[in-house]
Formats: sequence, structure tokens, C-alpha cells
Amino acid sequence: MLKTDIKEIFKNKVKYAQKEVRVAGWVRSVRNSKNFGFIDLNDGTCFESVQVVFEEGVVSNYNAVASLNAGSSVCVTGNLLLTPEAKQPFEIKATKVDILNATDESYPLQKKHHSVEFLREIAHLRPRTRLFNAIFRIRSVAAYAIHRYFQDNGYLYVHTPLLTTADCEGSDQMFKVTTLDMDNLPKTKGGKCDYSADLFGKKTYITGSGQLHGEAFALAFSKIYTFGPTFRTENSNTKTHANEFWMIEPEIAFCDLDGLMDIEEEMLKSVVAYVLENCPTELAYLDSFISPGLLQKLNNLIKSKFTRIDHKDVITILKNSGEKWDFEPTYDGDIAKEHEKYITKYFGGPVFIKNWPKDIKAYYMKVNPDGKTVAAVDLEVPEAGELMGGSQREEDYDKLIARCKELNVNTDPIEWFINLRKFGSCEHSGFGMGFERLVIYLTGIDNIRDSIPFPRTPRNCEF
Amino acid sequence: MLKTDIKEIFKNKVKYAQKEVRVAGWVRSVRNSKNFGFIDLNDGTCFESVQVVFEEGVVSNYNAVASLNAGSSVCVTGNLLLTPEAKQPFEIKATKVDILNATDESYPLQKKHHSVEFLREIAHLRPRTRLFNAIFRIRSVAAYAIHRYFQDNGYLYVHTPLLTTADCEGSDQMFKVTTLDMDNLPKTKGGKCDYSADLFGKKTYITGSGQLHGEAFALAFSKIYTFGPTFRTENSNTKTHANEFWMIEPEIAFCDLDGLMDIEEEMLKSVVAYVLENCPTELAYLDSFISPGLLQKLNNLIKSKFTRIDHKDVITILKNSGEKWDFEPTYDGDIAKEHEKYITKYFGGPVFIKNWPKDIKAYYMKVNPDGKTVAAVDLEVPEAGELMGGSQREEDYDKLIARCKELNVNTDPIEWFINLRKFGSCEHSGFGMGFERLVIYLTGIDNIRDSIPFPRTPRNCEF
Repeated sequence: MLKTDIKEIFKNKVKYAQKEVRVAGWVRSVRNSKNFGFIDLNDGTCFESVQVVFEEGVVSNYNAVASLNAGSSVCVTGNLLLTPEAKQPFEIKATKVDILNATDESYPLQKKHHSVEFLREIAHLRPRTRLFNAIFRIRSVAAYAIHRYFQDNGYLYVHTPLLTTADCEGSDQMFKVTTLDMDNLPKTKGGKCDYSADLFGKKTYITGSGQLHGEAFALAFSKIYTFGPTFRTENSNTKTHANEFWMIEPEIAFCDLDGLMDIEEEMLKSVVAYVLENCPTELAYLDSFISPGLLQKLNNLIKSKFTRIDHKDVITILKNSGEKWDFEPTYDGDIAKEHEKYITKYFGGPVFIKNWPKDIKAYYMKVNPDGKTVAAVDLEVPEAGELMGGSQREEDYDKLIARCKELNVNTDPIEWFINLRKFGSCEHSGFGMGFERLVIYLTGIDNIRDSIPFPRTPRNCEF
Repeated sequence: MLKTDIKEIFKNKVKYAQKEVRVAGWVRSVRNSKNFGFIDLNDGTCFESVQVVFEEGVVSNYNAVASLNAGSSVCVTGNLLLTPEAKQPFEIKATKVDILNATDESYPLQKKHHSVEFLREIAHLRPRTRLFNAIFRIRSVAAYAIHRYFQDNGYLYVHTPLLTTADCEGSDQMFKVTTLDMDNLPKTKGGKCDYSADLFGKKTYITGSGQLHGEAFALAFSKIYTFGPTFRTENSNTKTHANEFWMIEPEIAFCDLDGLMDIEEEMLKSVVAYVLENCPTELAYLDSFISPGLLQKLNNLIKSKFTRIDHKDVITILKNSGEKWDFEPTYDGDIAKEHEKYITKYFGGPVFIKNWPKDIKAYYMKVNPDGKTVAAVDLEVPEAGELMGGSQREEDYDKLIARCKELNVNTDPIEWFINLRKFGSCEHSGFGMGFERLVIYLTGIDNIRDSIPFPRTPRNCEF
């Protein structure tokens, strides 16, 4: 079907003025008086809809068009008229309206307000609403902005594997994967599951991180990033948890913690600036109807200088705040949601909290000269909380082995990873960013279920 | 560590000429005579290595540097001298060589030829070789070229879910995923696995395709694409099979089979042109050492017009060829590898084979007016075989239901997908491209194991 994207017409309306155009899309609504009417037509190539005017005696199927229901698909041929006086910059005066597929009253998205909870139940249709049109386009543009930043800055995109036989992350947090017949599992003599007949001949998981593989590639290409799906088995129903989500994990050789924070800050500003530039109507809509102040928040971010502060100094601020905390802040403890909120408000913007107590952090992080803290850093942003978590990695073979022993990490399946410290090891650092967290930050929505096309949460794997 | 990427120096060598620079990377080799020597230093930011000259009396640790082994990491400070007469465009005259981590003879990548089979056993180190430096950079650049093509052309990037409870693809081809204790599975009264306690409360799989979800999004955004990992349980050890790979699945509303072929052709040419432009040294290396004629093949592709021919006419050509076939070509049958080869040679370039017998194709493909064939198309390219497979989708509710019945497809778990045909259905088409096939085509390598950073194949889930 020869037709023009509505986006293209919005971009070059002068080029199409007074010319015949053909568009196809879905009816948002139809209004009509006696012998003429208007279709609000959207094809999803941009946020905006186009106004189609249809007139009795001009379009041959006037009555059928006038009674079209929301969600119907049509193809419209007509003349494009610029309407500088009106709300919309142009309209299409239809000469022909082909009805492709008319919906009836069973169409779940009738023209009225629908709650996000209801829309989650029709995940296959909700992208047709203005809200999800905005969210999912911002998601797409942000994903591209991330690729663009890293590619423009010389990073290699690496597809780290999801299937793994290494359980060093704590196998209870990982999904098990098998080709065995679950109704009839082969058993070992001891009565346990016998994986020898499984496709990989071993117990296999879906991994929750590409970091270890990313490090191997960083020690070959200097600067790499991953961007792919990640899985957690967490059985918790909150606004911030999903069992399947996307993550970006850059890893940089010859880079310390300060260098890492520079990269995180530059990358985030670059992505926010790109989305501001490419999704102005989507952001304006969200700013008006979902998250007042969103545009100002994003515009402020790209101009601000992120605060960098040690974990211990954050604790001192929290202790001296005079606030009543649900969780008492401690110098050897984690930082709760309420603390994150306070501290980003305190500094009026994003805050890097660095040099965390080593006992609450992972085995691969570099222990600082004080012997008590590790060179780890979390980036906290207003409203969305922890957006990125990173660290300088322990590059010394003996020290890494010692930390694994201390923390009871089984090094057998990651011997190759440990051995990277013998073969041209160097100072290196990396971070992880949960992509949905970024989408939440960029759109101002408050539930991860609305940031993912088809979300997976406990007992919910529909569609 | 303040240092400059070697790529940046190659790009702007005049800017750095006669100036002090600092680079860091891995030693490919060291040659030395009595009182001076050369380091071939690579940091992976580009294919090229830089030549470092070090001299006794200038660098304080001359002997240690002179005896460095391949794979050692160093940081070099020195002056950049343009060498227009020499093979390399410049060299760095070292004033300081900091040895970060010296390897010994246990380093598996000594300076000699290694077979690709051996290199697969050290997947964590092989990206440091020239071969895999070239392959994985082309992989990264090609991935970006794909995003770039679709984003520039107004497509929405959608992350379709991997976890699914729908088994309509044929569950024997899908990995099962569980959080249950495999050594101690809960059982139903009938003795089968009881999934009610599993995270999603149902039998769950990793999907092999995002097409169905992609269609839902195409019917909202008109033009969408996916790009993510895909899984198959196939227990076959061939050069073309892997159990985890990446796939691109575009889906376009208001688009028929001809329109689809236009898009496939334009996209492929755009990606090949981008890789030719951005990876000239990598491609030149592969052309010289791995796949003679590679550059010509790729340059030919972007200038050629792809052939479009019906399946039945291909069969006639094959039957009349006078060749002896292992598999006799038939009008109602599939096309074997030997036929693919013959037909791309016959036409001297890529060939779209379209309108396939419906009995060997999937339920969702649109049946042609002849009632015997479906509007499906495979793109065959010289050497790599089938690169893309696509079709126009059946958009009529009743016809789709009838096809599902004919082919015994359980429609219960995909009711939402079928219902898209009631809610603003329209002509739409889509295709899938296996990303590794593209990497194989772009690099001229012949084994999928060498196109994937950490490949997963039957009984092989190491690293």
C-alpha cells in the first residue's frame, strides 16, 4: 500500500501542502455534524494525530465513516490543507476513506479514561493509547541514544551470553533452564536430578549479569558495553521489581572510580539531551498529564554537576538531619529508599555515593587502601532512586582470590574470569544501569509494569 | 589513568604529531636489538596496533621491557613521530614504559598461529587476536548499523519478552524455565510436575521469536523492530547451529510482500554500506587472510538489484539444470542447501524466493488467492544461504482461525494475538534475520561459533 507516514507529513508539511496524500492508521475518534465530520487519525509513527475532514457527497461511504468506532483501521486519500489559524497545523480533506477493519463495541479501548491497571490487562492494545505511545517511543529513543553514545565514543557492543552453567551469583536468584522432561526427570543414583542428558550436560541457568564476560572483552577492546535482557527470580510484587528487564553494562579498562563517574555522568546527560531533542511532544504530554515538572527535571539534569560524596559522609548527613528514619542509618550499612530520597533532595540533584563498606558489597570490587571500604559507586537520582551501580574491579589476582575465600564464592566455574588477572590485568571499572529505571526517570511514570511492553512479574506471564 | 585511545591517534595523527602522548594496551610482540626495541601495542579501540620504540638509557627499565611477553599490559608515555616513509604512519618514541601486568609463558596466546578450534577453548582471550578483534568489531558495528537504519526510518525498537507461557511454537523446541527445586519437584496427584508453586504458576519457556508481540506493536506504531537474543534447543552440532543467538524481527503495518522485499533489500544494503565505511581495515584483513573476495562480494551487493522469483520457478530451474541433486527438488517441497547455492550462483547475487507451498510454512502466513501458496519470502545470499525469512501475515480473523485448525495450532494461549484481527486489523508483513548469519556473511567466516562472543552449543556452555 503506497502511503505516507504521518510523522513525515508533520516534519515536511509545507512540501505536502495543497497536494494529494494518502495515510493509513487507526481511528482515535470520529465527530460529525449533519453532512461533514472529523476523524482523529493516528498511525503511531509519531505522537500526533492528523485531523481528517470528510464530507457527505465527497466521500462515497459517508455514513459508514461517520459511524466508525475507535480502533478501526482506515486508509485515507485526500488533500492536505495548512490551517495556520487552527490548533492543528494542517488537516486532510478526504476524497476517499477506505475502511480496512471496523471495530465494534467489543473493542476494549473505547474513548474514555482507562486506568493503567486496566490497560495492563490489555497489554497487546495499550500501545495505541496516548500514554503508552509516549512511553514506548521514549523507551525506543532512549535505547538508541545509549547505543549512539557508546558507539560515538569508541565502545564495542558485546552480546554476552544469557545461558550459563556458573552459579556464582547465587543460584537461588537465577532461573533454571532445561530441555529435560519435567514430568519425568531422569534421576541420579542419589535421587537427584540427573543433568547428564540435558542439552548442555550440566545444570544451567539464565544469568543475571554480563559483567564477567564484559570484563574479558574490556581487557581486549578497552571500552565495551552490553545491552540486553536480564532475569531475576525475586518473588516480590512492588512498583520497582520485574522478573525480566533490560540492562546496560559498560566496562572500561585503564579506568578508575573517578573516571567511571565521569563516564556515567556524561552518558546520562547525553541520553537525556537526545530524548529531550527527539521526543518533545511525548515529554510535553507526560509533563502535562502524568508528571508535572518532568521537563524541568530533565532540563536541569543536563546542566547540573553531579555531587560526589563518600558513603560515610552521607551517613553523617543523615544522622545529623534531625529526621525520624524507619531504618537507622549506620556507617557499616546500606542506604534505604528514604535515605536516597533525602540525600538527592539535600543536594538538589543527582548524587554519586562512593566508597561503600566492603562487607555489604560484592567480591569483585576493589578494596580501598583503608581495608574497610571498596571503590564502589551508586548514582542516586531524584525520584527514581538508584539508577546505576558500579565499581572499580579488583585487578590483583591474589587479592581477588582472597576476597572470594572471605565471601565463600565458588571460583571453579569462573576460573577463566579470575585468570584474566594473570594475563595482562589492569585497572578497570564498570557499571550497570537498569534500563527500566531510566525509562521511569525519563517518563515520570511510577510503576515498572508500565515501562515494559509485556511485563513479567510473579504469577504474571500473560501475553 | 589519563591516556588516549589508539583509535583517536590514528584518526587525528597530525594533531598529535611531535607531541607527548600516553597510551595503554596489550603487547602483541616485542622485538629488540642491542640497545633499542619495538613494541607492537594494541588497545583494542581499533584494529591497528601502534609501534612503540624504546631505547636503552631513555626508558629506565629497558631490560624488563625488552623481555616482555605477549599479552602483557603496559602504559607508554612518549613522543609521537610521523613516519611517512614507513609501513606504519607514525610511531611513539617512549620516554617511559610502565609495566602494569607482565604475563609469563603460561599465557595461552603466544606469538604463533593458533587454530580457531583452539581459540574457541579460550573464548575469554581470543578477542585479543587480530581475527576476533576484526570479527567482533564488525559484529558491533553491524548491530549499530541495524539500529541506525530502523531508527532513521521511523521504526520503533520494541523489547519483546523472552519468558512465555505460550507453547504454540512447539514446546519441544523451547527451553523450559523454572524456579522450582529440580532435585525435589512438587508433583500433581497424577504424578506430573506441579507448576502451581513456580514463579509464574504455570509451565514457562524461553521464546524463540518476538513476532507475535511485534505484530501487536506494529498495529499501534506502524513500523517496529526487535533485536534481542533467541534460543533453540536443537541438538545439532553443525557450523550453522547455536542454541543462543540474536535475531532482528521487523514488522510493518500497511505493507504487503512486495513492500517487505523493498525494505529487506534497502536495510541489508544500508547495513553493508555502513560496515564497509566503518570497518575498512578489519574487512581488508579478512579479505586477505580469511575470505578472499570478501570486499568485492560486499561492494557488489550494495550495487546489485536483488532477483525476485517464485518458488515454483526456482524448482523449474533446478529441475532443468542437469545437476545431480542429493535432494530432488519438488514443487511442493523445501529448498535444500545445495539448491540455495545453485540458485544464488545462477543469478549471480542475492535472490528473493517467494510464494512458497503453504503446506511447508507457518500458520500465520497469508494464503495467496491460488489457495496453494503463501505470501512468504526467503532471502538467499551467496555463501551464507538463507539470511532472512518473512511473510505477509494473515490479517483476516476467520481465515487465521481456519489455518490454526488445519495445522492443529492451540490458539488458547495466543487468543490476544488472534484478536488483533478484530481490532483494527490491516495488511501487514514482517521478517526475521538471524544476526549471526549476517555476521558470517559480513566477515566471510564459516562457523557460527566464531561469530558469537561466548557460543552455546550442545554440551558446550562453558565460560
